[in-house]
Amino acid sequence: MNYQVPRGTQDILPKDIRKWHRLEELIRQFCHVYNYDEIRTPIFEHTNVFKRGNDSSDMVNKEMYTFQLENSKTSLTLRPEGTAGVVRSFVENKLFGSADLPVKMYYVGPQFRHERPQKGRMRIFHQFGVEVIGAKSPMLDVETIALGWSFVSALGLKDMKVLINTLGDDASRDAYRTALKEHFKNDIDDMCADCKRRYEQNPLRILDCKVDHEKEIMKTAPKMQDYLNEESQAYFEEVLEGLDALGIPYEVDDRLVRGLDYYTHTVFEVVSVNKEMGAQSTVFAGGRYDGLVEYFGGPQGMSGIGWAMGLERLLIACEAEGISLDEEEGLDAYVLCLSPSVKKEALQVVSLLRANGYRSDTDYLGRSFKAQFKTVDRKKARIAILIGEDEVEKGEVTIKDTLHKTQQSVPFDDIIDSMDALFEEENEECTCGEENCTCGHHHHHEE
Amino acid sequence: MNYQVPRGTQDILPKDIRKWHRLEELIRQFCHVYNYDEIRTPIFEHTNVFKRGNDSSDMVNKEMYTFQLENSKTSLTLRPEGTAGVVRSFVENKLFGSADLPVKMYYVGPQFRHERPQKGRMRIFHQFGVEVIGAKSPMLDVETIALGWSFVSALGLKDMKVLINTLGDDASRDAYRTALKEHFKNDIDDMCADCKRRYEQNPLRILDCKVDHEKEIMKTAPKMQDYLNEESQAYFEEVLEGLDALGIPYEVDDRLVRGLDYYTHTVFEVVSVNKEMGAQSTVFAGGRYDGLVEYFGGPQGMSGIGWAMGLERLLIACEAEGISLDEEEGLDAYVLCLSPSVKKEALQVVSLLRANGYRSDTDYLGRSFKAQFKTVDRKKARIAILIGEDEVEKGEVTIKDTLHKTQQSVPFDDIIDSMDALFEEENEECTCGEENCTCGHHHHHEE
Repeated sequence: MNYQVPRGTQDILPKDIRKWHRLEELIRQFCHVYNYDEIRTPIFEHTNVFKRGNDSSDMVNKEMYTFQLENSKTSLTLRPEGTAGVVRSFVENKLFGSADLPVKMYYVGPQFRHERPQKGRMRIFHQFGVEVIGAKSPMLDVETIALGWSFVSALGLKDMKVLINTLGDDASRDAYRTALKEHFKNDIDDMCADCKRRYEQNPLRILDCKVDHEKEIMKTAPKMQDYLNEESQAYFEEVLEGLDALGIPYEVDDRLVRGLDYYTHTVFEVVSVNKEMGAQSTVFAGGRYDGLVEYFGGPQGMSGIGWAMGLERLLIACEAEGISLDEEEGLDAYVLCLSPSVKKEALQVVSLLRANGYRSDTDYLGRSFKAQFKTVDRKKARIAILIGEDEVEKGEVTIKDTLHKTQQSVPFDDIIDSMDALFEEENEECTCGEENCTCGHHHHHEE
Repeated sequence: MNYQVPRGTQDILPKDIRKWHRLEELIRQFCHVYNYDEIRTPIFEHTNVFKRGNDSSDMVNKEMYTFQLENSKTSLTLRPEGTAGVVRSFVENKLFGSADLPVKMYYVGPQFRHERPQKGRMRIFHQFGVEVIGAKSPMLDVETIALGWSFVSALGLKDMKVLINTLGDDASRDAYRTALKEHFKNDIDDMCADCKRRYEQNPLRILDCKVDHEKEIMKTAPKMQDYLNEESQAYFEEVLEGLDALGIPYEVDDRLVRGLDYYTHTVFEVVSVNKEMGAQSTVFAGGRYDGLVEYFGGPQGMSGIGWAMGLERLLIACEAEGISLDEEEGLDAYVLCLSPSVKKEALQVVSLLRANGYRSDTDYLGRSFKAQFKTVDRKKARIAILIGEDEVEKGEVTIKDTLHKTQQSVPFDDIIDSMDALFEEENEECTCGEENCTCGHHHHHEE
């Protein structure tokens, strides 16, 4: 029998994990500095958290992992995106009562969409997202974009572009919707099935259509900006001025409507223009939403803004720009076990090294000296420690420094002192004195 | 309409996230030092990855989230445990061909079991687990236990106990199974339905029964140790000697059989004996498995060992022993925006602070000076930076040090220099010079 990972999903293997660690550390670091706190919602929710009324998006209508367990009437759905769960949690846990609004949150984790897999589009993929709920200020729209922009900049990405648009407030959008229906009414019968559905549910999304994209009627469609009322126009201008103030370059794209129905005012997409990115070029995207908190049973008029970033796609964008996030790190020490009869002593030595913060390993296969020394090379071990029957009898080990090509015999009790002396140079670099410092230097604390 | 988190699941809110971060950092640190690499397998797998032949466990038979999407013939299951996916991945990705066996892996993430929720038992819960595959040595059994034991010790847990047993090799277990069937054959009709099933599928698991636990026939059941052949006995003795060598205390518990069918030789449970733990006292548990790699289509005779630790339960154990993992951290600076007309300038200042590594925030609600100063207190901000129309006209801000109760006017261009001077003391603590140091000190790098 052949067991394989399900279609559209993948394992992240040990050889590829470092870039994920690097991303996750950077996410945590940036959100800490920006004063955004992490929130974690369940992998699945009640289906109605995602399937809201008349939602027209493909994601909700076609791509959800929805299931019911045998003997259960509860319909559950693996989360296809992060916003709905976070807003549900914000309301259920009454975070709207927080003394300091807005509540600034971020999330990192898997999302699930049953789409046709292609490069940059997996059925299980990972998103880093932010949600800021409980205040409406153009400066917050700017702040969230700035967080994402400075994050991708810190990674070294350069071929990036901010596309931005406004959908205005409810009144502006209603006026625009009416104009769009009028515009498309004679042609809708010749358009694709999805467009026919969108015509009824949310005509703005017709502009997003990949099938009818080239039709003349699409090119002559009315533009949102002509239907914005004064407040909506003023709000958008403040957002653009804020981006200018922070030196974040952008392009206003009046065709940008985004694939989710709940957006109002600002919507944006940050895309890679690197030519190797192909069709899936959006790295992060989002917008402001005004009705979601109330929809989930929270107070009226609580606005939110957020975006989500696809991490698999971010890694593809990094690769396209030649940015490597892998940093291989060697072992501090490898303990060569020269005879099966001393394996207990070898384990004691490796255990002592680890308890003192030295990244170490040993042989468990009873391999030859030569084979074990190959491992020292492969694992880039700085120190090789030899222990055999002779050594155990004398109560000592042989310590070889592979960097300085030196060798010495050291009594069991002095192993850590000798290691400390050999690593002295490196140790001196870090004097932060923190017990749980994770800066990568050796910290010699007894456990 | 009322939207709630599904039964048996929970949100991890911003106020509770710090202890999870602390656990995850410590996990990563320990596994790094022990030379274990992280592996991530998908949240769902094909059902047959978990439902293997004649498996008798409740987990596989009663508690799995198994589903089939509409119009799909593929049965998928949300992973109920970590080992099966890791072994599937090990085989599918041919990690058995690695130059350095065994392959040492760890995982951290959600698992899913449709059980009756109770304290320490959630339907979505989180496990940290290790799997070491490709070598069979009693010293590896000891190493994995040592990793978990030193991890919980580093957290400060003291009321912990290692329970250990051996199930022996296939021959020993077959002999024992025959003896158990003989022992129970006249009484099995009076025992519970689960026991009847176990009698056919895996009589060892009868000893695990919570229902028939008190029956006389259970107390007189034959013991595994009397059916061990010489090799199995010798293997187990070496494991115990290794634990002695590392100073890890244990109790041999000859009733310990573990709830999964694939174990051979060593099985163990590390439990909290703290009286507040109640029925769910196991913190981590595991054992050696010999047949799984071959089952998934890999080479014959490749042995593995692993354990899994329930993180929710670990947190309960910490709480029971009065160990707090929360460390609240204040803001470095809060920018008070004294007039809505200068909100763009306030955003520029907070953005400058963040770009220089200072954890900062500002007001977006146009609140009163007094209300904003309350936030300075609540967020434990070390520095308050005031910016109003007067300040903007003069091109400066007012910087208040809440620790030393000092105040000064500072030109826009000198804000970072002034902050650096105020934080000088703290900055001096960390001189590691690493750009991406995450030790928590301020690093002033331009982005």
